[in-house]
Amino acid sequence: MTDFARNQWYVAAYGREVGRELLGRTVLGEPILLYRTEDGRAVAMSDRCVHRRFPLSQAPGRLDGDSVVCGYHGFTYEPDGRCVFVPGQQRVPRTARLQTWHVIEQDSFVWVWMGDREPGTTRPPRAPWLDSADYTVVSGMEPIDGGYGLLVDNLMDLSHETYLHGGSIGTPEVAATPITTEVDEEAGVVHVSRHMEDAECPPFYAKSTGIEGRISRRQDIEYHAPGLYLLHSRIAPVGAPGPAPDGSDPHAFHVEVVYGITPSTERTTYDFWAVARDFALDDQKVTDFLRENNHIVVMQDVVALNVLQQSLDTEKAGYQELSINIDTGGLAARRILARLARPGGDRPAAAAR
Amino acid sequence: MTDFARNQWYVAAYGREVGRELLGRTVLGEPILLYRTEDGRAVAMSDRCVHRRFPLSQAPGRLDGDSVVCGYHGFTYEPDGRCVFVPGQQRVPRTARLQTWHVIEQDSFVWVWMGDREPGTTRPPRAPWLDSADYTVVSGMEPIDGGYGLLVDNLMDLSHETYLHGGSIGTPEVAATPITTEVDEEAGVVHVSRHMEDAECPPFYAKSTGIEGRISRRQDIEYHAPGLYLLHSRIAPVGAPGPAPDGSDPHAFHVEVVYGITPSTERTTYDFWAVARDFALDDQKVTDFLRENNHIVVMQDVVALNVLQQSLDTEKAGYQELSINIDTGGLAARRILARLARPGGDRPAAAAR
Amino acid sequence: MTDFARNQWYVAAYGREVGRELLGRTVLGEPILLYRTEDGRAVAMSDRCVHRRFPLSQAPGRLDGDSVVCGYHGFTYEPDGRCVFVPGQQRVPRTARLQTWHVIEQDSFVWVWMGDREPGTTRPPRAPWLDSADYTVVSGMEPIDGGYGLLVDNLMDLSHETYLHGGSIGTPEVAATPITTEVDEEAGVVHVSRHMEDAECPPFYAKSTGIEGRISRRQDIEYHAPGLYLLHSRIAPVGAPGPAPDGSDPHAFHVEVVYGITPSTERTTYDFWAVARDFALDDQKVTDFLRENNHIVVMQDVVALNVLQQSLDTEKAGYQELSINIDTGGLAARRILARLARPGGDRPAAAAR
Repeated sequence: MTDFARNQWYVAAYGREVGRELLGRTVLGEPILLYRTEDGRAVAMSDRCVHRRFPLSQAPGRLDGDSVVCGYHGFTYEPDGRCVFVPGQQRVPRTARLQTWHVIEQDSFVWVWMGDREPGTTRPPRAPWLDSADYTVVSGMEPIDGGYGLLVDNLMDLSHETYLHGGSIGTPEVAATPITTEVDEEAGVVHVSRHMEDAECPPFYAKSTGIEGRISRRQDIEYHAPGLYLLHSRIAPVGAPGPAPDGSDPHAFHVEVVYGITPSTERTTYDFWAVARDFALDDQKVTDFLRENNHIVVMQDVVALNVLQQSLDTEKAGYQELSINIDTGGLAARRILARLARPGGDRPAAAAR
Repeated sequence: MTDFARNQWYVAAYGREVGRELLGRTVLGEPILLYRTEDGRAVAMSDRCVHRRFPLSQAPGRLDGDSVVCGYHGFTYEPDGRCVFVPGQQRVPRTARLQTWHVIEQDSFVWVWMGDREPGTTRPPRAPWLDSADYTVVSGMEPIDGGYGLLVDNLMDLSHETYLHGGSIGTPEVAATPITTEVDEEAGVVHVSRHMEDAECPPFYAKSTGIEGRISRRQDIEYHAPGLYLLHSRIAPVGAPGPAPDGSDPHAFHVEVVYGITPSTERTTYDFWAVARDFALDDQKVTDFLRENNHIVVMQDVVALNVLQQSLDTEKAGYQELSINIDTGGLAARRILARLARPGGDRPAAAAR
Repeated sequence: MTDFARNQWYVAAYGREVGRELLGRTVLGEPILLYRTEDGRAVAMSDRCVHRRFPLSQAPGRLDGDSVVCGYHGFTYEPDGRCVFVPGQQRVPRTARLQTWHVIEQDSFVWVWMGDREPGTTRPPRAPWLDSADYTVVSGMEPIDGGYGLLVDNLMDLSHETYLHGGSIGTPEVAATPITTEVDEEAGVVHVSRHMEDAECPPFYAKSTGIEGRISRRQDIEYHAPGLYLLHSRIAPVGAPGPAPDGSDPHAFHVEVVYGITPSTERTTYDFWAVARDFALDDQKVTDFLRENNHIVVMQDVVALNVLQQSLDTEKAGYQELSINIDTGGLAARRILARLARPGGDRPAAAAR
């Protein structure tokens, strides 16, 4: 099991999931209530009434303006967590106050700060493609019955595409092509690159881009530990010109694959997945195809990770993993996560000493 | 989790549930077999064969006259728990004897004495309306996936009717009206009263009594710890005369709501519920309405308590409940239950010292 | 819970279950992959990839010739457990090797040696009827949610047929007839015999043999601890001649009931069951009847043993079983199993000292 890294931003929901209905999520073991005030601000508050621990998100709990009314005895809370009504008496105890969490809405995500200290100027890492007019996005969330470390392992080593996702995004070249790995220990970012300059075009990209022959396919991973994973995917016909000196890249198709990786409990995880593309922006068929096919890919991972968690749970003492070159990025990620989970390990300065 | 109070009477079943079919129940963690002898006497016996612990209530176990035949190897027991037949040999070992429990049938319930000493003259508390020609009764049992303390909490604080049961029995006045609480520590009885002299009539009572305007509504709780809860509910049109000096009360409708609260395991409970009324005795529509609607109310509680148990199970260390005035009765009940659960705490004399 | 006896042969599968599809079984807590090479040899290999513990039997894992390709990252193993391919690099680490187990195919079963030492000349006990032209066989496997000791108990004491299987194979005489028990401690074999010379013919035998009157019915159990149970069942009309001096027995019907008893985890068991008969060999109606009816009998046991495991799991401290004469064989079996489970206890010489 991978320890939780506290004092970090995590994706708790998509902005579209948070509204005037009460939503309960569990992040790092904390039950969190999410809703939106009448003026549109997202609120993250403890999802347990101070009175008898009833989940506020549980029916018949409800919103009354910007306040939340507990469905059991009517204890009522303002967005700042302060209790303003209790039944049967005028005086509300001073200690009747629920924990709230800092919230930032950014790039279509509702991020919450899961820390025992203030975030200060720390902000969540960016995934601007998810909220940009230049991209069309499909996205969703799947819960995993496995610890979040299993999902990090999975995403850091894309050689599994060739096997687990053989029919859709994997081709022989993915597993066969060596990777380069760069680690920014202080920033907590791991880069893993795999550039296939003459590769088979998998159905996922053939059908969405219309390319018929072989492709130049680049996978550039950028993992911002603990909670955001970016895969910059560039596809172009073999021989097409590369990016221009000004950074423009008109001869290639770009897909930004984004994962919000959010530990729910020690052995469950929220897998927020999104696929943004810079082509065929208004083509609904391409949108539908990518949504359906990426969901299939995500579910193949979910099934595999659920199975891995069961393997872990029933494992004999003394089992030793065996790591190879492809695991360089994943091992770097584990090292950073272990450091972030240590007391004070979230402070880069402390880590650098 | 609320500790078990032993040396107490508990409702194990309705009398109508105990017959010539074998019934298995688990009370205070003890597997109990219930059946009725040919002359109609209810028997409570250990539900585990002395041989290989097979549950006697499990098919194809069966009755042979007044004896129980184990469905695995045929070990046969008399109602006093004595084994009188074993397969393959004439001699029955002297130690082949099952524990039995004292049984009292009263007020439609089968009570069992769950003690390590004799009950002596102790008898279960009364709920005479459930077996009276002057009342019509609807009743049932629902298992709860939660400890019995959660059900006691729930019933001692009826302000939750306003919120959890808003559409049926709750109105704003229930939560808003202050309560008075009286505790008889020695007898282990808690009284909580809430008298609403000018209140909205909830659908539950409007449809069953036919009252159309506002009502005087009195809720008088009488909790006999640990296992019997009575709610004397009096409904009358506002302004109607009160009870006469001789105790008669012809201008009001009376509903006696009764709960048998029986711990099954540490985190499961039998919720025996009954509603007795002194009006519209032969009106099948009223009977059907009250049965259906009270079942809805009970299930709202069951769902809520199941959720609370899950909250408890996943709770962070250090969670503190916050209690207010409405909890006075519930806290008194908890105090009495804690005393009853202590060794010797079931003896009032010991408690009084 | 009955401890595991290691350094023993166990039935992992029927031969017909092991082919060119990957089959995962858990034996004595060990996840085992079973498949057949192209030349027909059965292989038993650890079902966890050395890399990240993914079960090799899990889709999309697959065979490539005689090698197994992991469905997660493509690690590829030869039948001897040696890893011969890993993704992204030429060199395969020397330590990349999976445990394999010795396999013997015999009497329709695939036996695996679950030991920490070599089997040497030890071979599985025999059940030749399951693979003989002189017998017709019906067989199957049912998983039990209970420890294997419960199944051994069950099968060693057939007096339960009278009660648990009253409608099919049990008659009053089974429970009423005394048994004789012989124990070969050193060989680890227990014999239990019950000879009923004038007994009711149960439907199971009446319908399959066509006998209409009373029968001589002999049950001769031969339990080879820990994993093979044989019930030699002989049925003949009352008064028919017995076996001839040369061992032939033309006046009787013979049914060989065979169980492979394989502990899966501490509280789950594989129940391999087979019924071989030496009569009506080509009568499909008899085959269908015996398959259907023996499956009913097996499922009655499965349900009972699942219930017993639940009884065990929730049992109060201090429960004591009570054993009688019918348990002599079962107690002998437990004693041998306890000895076999002790370190060195599997060596008969050590046991004899």
